[in-house]
Amino acid sequence: MQRLITLTTDFGAQDHYVGTMKGVILGINPAAQIVDICHGVPAFDVLEAALTIAQAYSYFPSDSVHVVVVDPGVGSQRRPIVVSTGRHVFVAPDNGVLSLVFAREERVMVRHITALHHFLQPVSPTFHGRDIFAPVAAHISKGVDPTVLGEVIRDPVRFAVSPPKSEGDGRLRGVVLKVDKFGNLVTNIRPTDVPQLFASPAPPFRIVVGKGEIRSLKLTFAEGSPGEPFAVLGSMGFLELAVNQASAAHTLGAGRGSEVAVFIE
Amino acid sequence: MQRLITLTTDFGAQDHYVGTMKGVILGINPAAQIVDICHGVPAFDVLEAALTIAQAYSYFPSDSVHVVVVDPGVGSQRRPIVVSTGRHVFVAPDNGVLSLVFAREERVMVRHITALHHFLQPVSPTFHGRDIFAPVAAHISKGVDPTVLGEVIRDPVRFAVSPPKSEGDGRLRGVVLKVDKFGNLVTNIRPTDVPQLFASPAPPFRIVVGKGEIRSLKLTFAEGSPGEPFAVLGSMGFLELAVNQASAAHTLGAGRGSEVAVFIE
Amino acid sequence: MQRLITLTTDFGAQDHYVGTMKGVILGINPAAQIVDICHGVPAFDVLEAALTIAQAYSYFPSDSVHVVVVDPGVGSQRRPIVVSTGRHVFVAPDNGVLSLVFAREERVMVRHITALHHFLQPVSPTFHGRDIFAPVAAHISKGVDPTVLGEVIRDPVRFAVSPPKSEGDGRLRGVVLKVDKFGNLVTNIRPTDVPQLFASPAPPFRIVVGKGEIRSLKLTFAEGSPGEPFAVLGSMGFLELAVNQASAAHTLGAGRGSEVAVFIE
Repeated sequence: MQRLITLTTDFGAQDHYVGTMKGVILGINPAAQIVDICHGVPAFDVLEAALTIAQAYSYFPSDSVHVVVVDPGVGSQRRPIVVSTGRHVFVAPDNGVLSLVFAREERVMVRHITALHHFLQPVSPTFHGRDIFAPVAAHISKGVDPTVLGEVIRDPVRFAVSPPKSEGDGRLRGVVLKVDKFGNLVTNIRPTDVPQLFASPAPPFRIVVGKGEIRSLKLTFAEGSPGEPFAVLGSMGFLELAVNQASAAHTLGAGRGSEVAVFIE
Repeated sequence: MQRLITLTTDFGAQDHYVGTMKGVILGINPAAQIVDICHGVPAFDVLEAALTIAQAYSYFPSDSVHVVVVDPGVGSQRRPIVVSTGRHVFVAPDNGVLSLVFAREERVMVRHITALHHFLQPVSPTFHGRDIFAPVAAHISKGVDPTVLGEVIRDPVRFAVSPPKSEGDGRLRGVVLKVDKFGNLVTNIRPTDVPQLFASPAPPFRIVVGKGEIRSLKLTFAEGSPGEPFAVLGSMGFLELAVNQASAAHTLGAGRGSEVAVFIE
Repeated sequence: MQRLITLTTDFGAQDHYVGTMKGVILGINPAAQIVDICHGVPAFDVLEAALTIAQAYSYFPSDSVHVVVVDPGVGSQRRPIVVSTGRHVFVAPDNGVLSLVFAREERVMVRHITALHHFLQPVSPTFHGRDIFAPVAAHISKGVDPTVLGEVIRDPVRFAVSPPKSEGDGRLRGVVLKVDKFGNLVTNIRPTDVPQLFASPAPPFRIVVGKGEIRSLKLTFAEGSPGEPFAVLGSMGFLELAVNQASAAHTLGAGRGSEVAVFIE
């Protein structure tokens, strides 16, 4: 039974961790098809991992099994969970890393994985990617039904990406959610939060971030003038702050968590 | 229909971009076999991407589909193109990133991709990797013929890697094309540019690069003495400047674009 | 014939090297299933590569072919070898990179690969990953028996990871073998070297590393107090020094090769 298993971790590229997980999966199901989504999530960064898997999973075929291991609580009381939506299955620690999946899906069934016979034994208290998450995903890919893995729980850990705050008079206060590889600043501001910005014609506006001020919205990166930061509706569905072929993070002196103040004039 | 799709991008390892492209491909053709060539091309670096795909593609099986997304002009008027050679198909932005493929192949057919129904809708103006290049490659891998994707064009953007300049009297002026992970300096000088260097016995010579001067040509990296830079005919077919188990870029204080002056004495 | 080929190299993510090796393999055996174990081994670091492959290979299915290319001696007299155990096949340079595989396996058959007709021709003296190791692995995956690749040798290069030294009176002197992505310090100390540490209750002890002193052993990373380094039995089977959600390497000012002094009191 050939079934897709995706991997999203903070294990990076320099160690054996990712390769070992792949070995475990293929050792259990040699026909599994493993796809790396991302292993460069910053260490312990549950929000980044939540954004990453939420942006990617829905494009994969139905019945894919998505393994997400960003797991600062490995070996502690935090539960391993399996999450079933109508189309996808997720295997992850119960630490909020699937929060944005929960937010997108109407019906999810969450189970606390307790079926020890699907784990590698002995279970290391420091590498559940190898000993719990990879083997459980492999068994699911071979046909094990998530319903046999453990009891349903109704209180999985979840966090919300806090929406920007409207302060009246066309003022909005948001935040930088992440900085991507190119230095683009992805904010928590969606078009519905400031529809004026996307009106045609748009009123004059200012966006204050870091040490910079932005007064223009572009449709593409290439429209920006050299060195001049601008706003753009990014592919993740959020307002991004960018510089054409350069890093907005660097230009603006801003990063994850930086405040983004929007003033419609 | 199982057909190989390779990916070469500057999307790096830290975001969802590559994983999302894989999801799109497998969502359209679950039987596609995806192979990462390289995602660590420096951001926006069309020349590096051109070198990377040109070094790798010819080893892949016939009928492979090669997706190359280093695309600073994403969303602008630059065209998405599909390129067919006798053996391979390429999907990329029309920005010169396939220049070195064009230089190697005798017959290429280039088409401007306009078959919108093969795109993901709506097309984000900032992520054509997801919305245009991945789905088009997936459809090709399922049997869609490139000829139906758009009209033939005869003016694709292409650049030439400028050859070194002979200055007479056994003098040649070249340039460093790229620095690899090991710090080897890959020049634009081919054996045919300075056949004397590869004669046996070779005449005395000097190669001046950065703050260093090189007077020996080795066959392998391991022949070099510790800390001593030397020249070697690299696996890309170009003269390289290297240091045994160390970085020539660091030792010589040179990098991409540095001048390389050869004096045959 | 679909057979797994794993890749472990120091080729990194920024160049065409890994992609080219994959092309060579698939060009010879389009049905080969390639799995990346790790390409982020530090340049020329044979010990790190030896640790990486030794931690990962045993989880893969029987009959997997493991290609390991960390090869500072490429093109020199060092031999390319193929190693068969009961279950796995390895293709690598004869530079000790399989030492920890040799240490784990009871019976290994090592051969000097001399079957030139299985190489890519001409063989570059600087990229045997492409011209020797990848094609040989691909041919094995298609059914070529390792016994036809060359003569058995009995003197492959191998090194031992030196065990910690007991200095009597409950004193032990070990070393940091590697630092992982998270900054955990993996030592060469196994539980059998200091069984007292793992007794229940354990006696008071001190571990001196870098500029720090550790007096507690935890079961998991999450038990550690912020900023406080502790010892933990790591998933590789060695004692590790760690800090909860932070880098022990940074906190302790220690790294690969740092001395680790254990005092049982």
